[in-house]
Amino acid sequence: MALNFPNRKTPAKNPVNRANLGMDLEQMINDSNEYYLANDIAVIHKKPTPVQIVKVDYPMRSKAVITEAYYKTPSTTDYNGIYKGKYIDFEAKENHNKTAFPLKNIHPHQIEHLKKIVEHGGIGFLIVAWNLYNEYYLLPFDVCLKYWDDSNTEEGRKSIPYSVFKEKAFLIEESYLPRLKYLNVVDKVYLKEDIAKQEK
Amino acid sequence: MALNFPNRKTPAKNPVNRANLGMDLEQMINDSNEYYLANDIAVIHKKPTPVQIVKVDYPMRSKAVITEAYYKTPSTTDYNGIYKGKYIDFEAKENHNKTAFPLKNIHPHQIEHLKKIVEHGGIGFLIVAWNLYNEYYLLPFDVCLKYWDDSNTEEGRKSIPYSVFKEKAFLIEESYLPRLKYLNVVDKVYLKEDIAKQEK
Repeated sequence: MALNFPNRKTPAKNPVNRANLGMDLEQMINDSNEYYLANDIAVIHKKPTPVQIVKVDYPMRSKAVITEAYYKTPSTTDYNGIYKGKYIDFEAKENHNKTAFPLKNIHPHQIEHLKKIVEHGGIGFLIVAWNLYNEYYLLPFDVCLKYWDDSNTEEGRKSIPYSVFKEKAFLIEESYLPRLKYLNVVDKVYLKEDIAKQEK
Repeated sequence: MALNFPNRKTPAKNPVNRANLGMDLEQMINDSNEYYLANDIAVIHKKPTPVQIVKVDYPMRSKAVITEAYYKTPSTTDYNGIYKGKYIDFEAKENHNKTAFPLKNIHPHQIEHLKKIVEHGGIGFLIVAWNLYNEYYLLPFDVCLKYWDDSNTEEGRKSIPYSVFKEKAFLIEESYLPRLKYLNVVDKVYLKEDIAKQEK
């Protein structure tokens, strides 16, 4: 695939610490999903943030106000949906480090969830933003799981090196619309194999 | 399919108005999904209730408290997931009426969402509880859509009659585990056709 922008595989010489990047990846994915939906390419939505609602007021003549609630740990991933008839499921993570993606960014139940998704025939992955380099990678779940399992051994490292992203993850092309062309990577990584299997 | 309980197709002579039925259907489906998950049958979750968070307090030494938030209109359905490699998507609705299910129970964007799901090759339906009769039906989305489209014409009726549920929807068997065996109906309605298609 030809990329129409400077080679982003090489870290920028003077990385700019972009503000609000925490919002950014989510916003970029949401915008991309809107584009995919509007153009009948895929139906993928972000799940709402899970909240434990404790107290609700019902003021007269106006709508209910939640006055006490707490964030809950999500039991699944952030995104799921359907693309070319396939169930798609992924988690999006920011990484502000230079050389490795710390595995503590991922909740154990998100790993369990993605494991089950893949076992049931779905497509599972992570989208990881390397903020210092302005790079976005699709990290296939099997690569992630290998490092996750290693990290639970005594001598195992607790992160995935940047070099592994360059070798085993897939750089996602940025564009105007969609912002992140991650479904192109899904095509390349998952659906070619699938077509090959059907042809056997 | 043999049913091991009295024929529920006939309305009970003295219908009992069960308290908390609003909770009940959701709880029954959640329990069923837990069973399906624990037994590696399917991975189907309820999406969190969408909430617009306005104000959050961060008290010292304790976790963040959301002190002002509002319910948002959901843009999709309540449930989705994967079953036998297929993307599954449905909405659950209670109905307290005797003779018809009012279509105003369904949001227009839920119809739009399910329409897209089906177009993209997913399985879409509603689970409707007829509370007076203690009956639970899987209503295929195409049946629902026909009545929805009719309801938007001037002379069209604004509800789906009970008789249509008896003819074109599928009674879901109740059991101890899972509480609602709705995936048995999915097998019967959607996956037999699918197998037949593959065999052609």
